[in-house]
Amino acid sequence: MTRVSGARDNEANLTRFGAAVRARRNALSLSQEALADLSGVDRSHMGKIERGERNVTLLNIVRIAEGLNCKPSDLLSEAGI
Amino acid sequence: MTRVSGARDNEANLTRFGAAVRARRNALSLSQEALADLSGVDRSHMGKIERGERNVTLLNIVRIAEGLNCKPSDLLSEAGI
Repeated sequence: MTRVSGARDNEANLTRFGAAVRARRNALSLSQEALADLSGVDRSHMGKIERGERNVTLLNIVRIAEGLNCKPSDLLSEAGI
Repeated sequence: MTRVSGARDNEANLTRFGAAVRARRNALSLSQEALADLSGVDRSHMGKIERGERNVTLLNIVRIAEGLNCKPSDLLSEAGI
């Protein structure tokens, strides 16, 4: 038995997180660039995070949540993670 | 004005996350090694995460939460993040 998530689950979790970021960002009428600058995250890295193409770190989750004026745990809840 | 967290905040967030993992692990009477094996996270990496010495990734947060039988968002809430 393995408890470890497969590659497909991993991808889905990253995609869901990115979608939650994008949804909050759009709700605030922020551009991706504006959110990157507010969060102190590199702009191209932010794009990859939103598309679920990067395994985002806890410190970047915290920074992005600050930029979105919400709690990191809310962002994960909204992503269904 | 900078919205970006300072080094001290970063450290505090990682330490709080590690403490939340440890608290749940102890509540389940799991050894650090057992949790590492359940989660599929390298044992020495798990030790560093619990001590707040590593910037844990979202996929490892998900794996650790699975090992602890809880939601990743709960783990962040319990860490006050």
